[in-house]
Amino acid sequence: MTTDIRSAALACRDAATTIAGLSAARKRDLLIAMAGQVDANAALILAANELDMAQAIHRGIGAAMLDRLRLDARRIAGIARSLMEVADLPDPVGQVTRRDTLPNGVVVERVRVPLGVIAMIYEARPNVTVDAAALCLKAGNGVILRGGSEAIHSNRALAGLLQQALRDAGLPPAAVTLVEDLRRETMLELLQLTDIVDLAIPRGGEGLIRFVAEHARVPVIKHYKGVCHLYVDKAANLGVALDLLIDGKVSRPSACNALETLLVHKDIADAFLPRAAAALAACKVELRGCERTCALLGNIAAASEEDYAAEYLDLIIAIRIVDDLDAAIAHIRRFGSDHTEVIASEDEASAQQFIAALRSAVVMVNTSSRFSDGGELGLGAEIGISTTRLHAYGPMGIDALTIERYVLRGHGQVRHRLSPATLNPNS
Amino acid sequence: MTTDIRSAALACRDAATTIAGLSAARKRDLLIAMAGQVDANAALILAANELDMAQAIHRGIGAAMLDRLRLDARRIAGIARSLMEVADLPDPVGQVTRRDTLPNGVVVERVRVPLGVIAMIYEARPNVTVDAAALCLKAGNGVILRGGSEAIHSNRALAGLLQQALRDAGLPPAAVTLVEDLRRETMLELLQLTDIVDLAIPRGGEGLIRFVAEHARVPVIKHYKGVCHLYVDKAANLGVALDLLIDGKVSRPSACNALETLLVHKDIADAFLPRAAAALAACKVELRGCERTCALLGNIAAASEEDYAAEYLDLIIAIRIVDDLDAAIAHIRRFGSDHTEVIASEDEASAQQFIAALRSAVVMVNTSSRFSDGGELGLGAEIGISTTRLHAYGPMGIDALTIERYVLRGHGQVRHRLSPATLNPNS
Repeated sequence: MTTDIRSAALACRDAATTIAGLSAARKRDLLIAMAGQVDANAALILAANELDMAQAIHRGIGAAMLDRLRLDARRIAGIARSLMEVADLPDPVGQVTRRDTLPNGVVVERVRVPLGVIAMIYEARPNVTVDAAALCLKAGNGVILRGGSEAIHSNRALAGLLQQALRDAGLPPAAVTLVEDLRRETMLELLQLTDIVDLAIPRGGEGLIRFVAEHARVPVIKHYKGVCHLYVDKAANLGVALDLLIDGKVSRPSACNALETLLVHKDIADAFLPRAAAALAACKVELRGCERTCALLGNIAAASEEDYAAEYLDLIIAIRIVDDLDAAIAHIRRFGSDHTEVIASEDEASAQQFIAALRSAVVMVNTSSRFSDGGELGLGAEIGISTTRLHAYGPMGIDALTIERYVLRGHGQVRHRLSPATLNPNS
Repeated sequence: MTTDIRSAALACRDAATTIAGLSAARKRDLLIAMAGQVDANAALILAANELDMAQAIHRGIGAAMLDRLRLDARRIAGIARSLMEVADLPDPVGQVTRRDTLPNGVVVERVRVPLGVIAMIYEARPNVTVDAAALCLKAGNGVILRGGSEAIHSNRALAGLLQQALRDAGLPPAAVTLVEDLRRETMLELLQLTDIVDLAIPRGGEGLIRFVAEHARVPVIKHYKGVCHLYVDKAANLGVALDLLIDGKVSRPSACNALETLLVHKDIADAFLPRAAAALAACKVELRGCERTCALLGNIAAASEEDYAAEYLDLIIAIRIVDDLDAAIAHIRRFGSDHTEVIASEDEASAQQFIAALRSAVVMVNTSSRFSDGGELGLGAEIGISTTRLHAYGPMGIDALTIERYVLRGHGQVRHRLSPATLNPNS
């Protein structure tokens, strides 16, 4: 059987038109019913996941990937719970974000509408199947899910349950379309359906994201990597700086909002770095330092240019002593990824300069980089984080899955009152 | 001399960092100084334009293109005036669009920041050089201008004056970068500088826009064409409908917000169409009708499927009698371009259904399609109109040349309070 991706996408677009017109209450009920489906069918999901796990083990897939792939009762309950959470978010569709009356009496509104059809391209984690579908549907969109081959059984089980909930509600199941033909050329075809797909969101490793960005003809929102910096200013509260460092590096090293590089003002390096190094060492973090850092701390590896550009996603941190705030800014401009940067400083002028000079999506003063997350920032849930400086920048909630359009209401206003008798534009 | 487009773009990006940091007052002064340069150097601009005109006439370029290319004292005064108007717009940069305090006390702001570097790709009209530069600078961006070869002398003169105003203000002239190497491969290279160019906006004919959309690797905001519809409902006020029809079709047929197709409910076709046809005929508009329209009006050409999809940009209109509102919606969904649609109806329920069912960027009730314009909608000026359902949808003002980012301020808050002594994530 060959999948016709264009027909599948067209069916999703038709279904999306139906979803776009649903009331807030019906969308909420739908997502609650989906949570019910997941809860009631945990055994079925687990059985499917076991097939994926067996296959992954057979293929010799690494431990980190296996962990992302694995579902258990607790994780399935988490998937159902996140459906309930999305169900309870305020509905963005139909929100009037601006209303003006023009001098001629025409009333102009900006109104939030769904984007249309969103293609999610992702890797191992099966929960993305449900999370992405929930967010897209809540914002009135259709979604085309193209997950990784390693999770195909799990994704099929989960998408099947979401589609059942759609059917039970009298809605077209194609609103959640799972791509089961995982050939690369089929993904390429999907990414070029500019007349059907309104947005592609790749989530996964840098390789996948670069592939999507390189080949898509539809708009793409993405972030390649999070090389997040903590700059400890000479005016830092060192206790605060230490808290931010440990939370940022250690609490979840594999997250894109984890710290990768520590920059320290030379005037406080002596006071801060030995304390920081001891705390990091206690957390088993490997240090790689600039020349001055190595001289100060002794016995640590030298950091190369590659270290400063690296997203370790691991218990490793690059450390550089800088002459001043300007040097810290220059370092981040050169090596940063526009994701999240933090300054620890009690000096408001330095904080302001740091904020103004950096173009990153999220800049923080005396706060952990780990807050650069849709859930933490009160977006309710996160479909992704954008470092594309367009449409959305930083953590993206359901609002980022909508767009504002114009609705005008008048009573016959025209731009130029023309009299057909006197008007003869061709002569 | 070969232009190194990458070096030029990098210089623009560096300059954009400076522009991003300017106060509202300095940007306003800069634009006023630019208007002064244009005013004071009208003779120089005219001389350059004469070179372009002579070359265009020599090449046998058509009258419409010649008119777009031509500058005269009045048009140059208009260019200077539009600089003054942009100077006086409210500055979008730094606007705080949302401020929340998280339960942990962290203050989260969404703050408008410039996009960065914007590449404008356009054709004959030299005023785009100045208008685009003014809007990009006002929103804190750098701009790379790639105009058409037919206007190169005019563009060089105008860009030179803008750069002089930058220099006089002690600012880097590369903030306004004119591409003088007009080879296609150089444009392709520009459109693939994903690490430098944040957005490309093509303006011109559908061929140019498709070329940019097809080849760009940087994000593109565009509209291919405006196939705008007027649907005259059975509950229309026929006087209003007639005003909207004539204004929409006749006041400026070459505009993208001009009407291209008239849809008429069958129940009022007898009452409306003969009047409409007479008024259109008085304005020298050629009619192309569906079978029923031809039967009713007699003696007009038959409309084909191509007519319904056409953006005539001329005094031609396609007319179709439809059975009901649903048929009108189905027609627009099939043939529309997501630009602007108008319903003439006194029935609020029909108007609501029309608005909800159509996904176009601008939908209007009892108002002329010609209001689908940044200036008319109070955006101050317009950098383009987007039918890409992302970032901006419909007329784009300076706000659309910015993006909101996150600024967080705390006093040491972390996501997980970790004790290095108890924490040992690797074991």
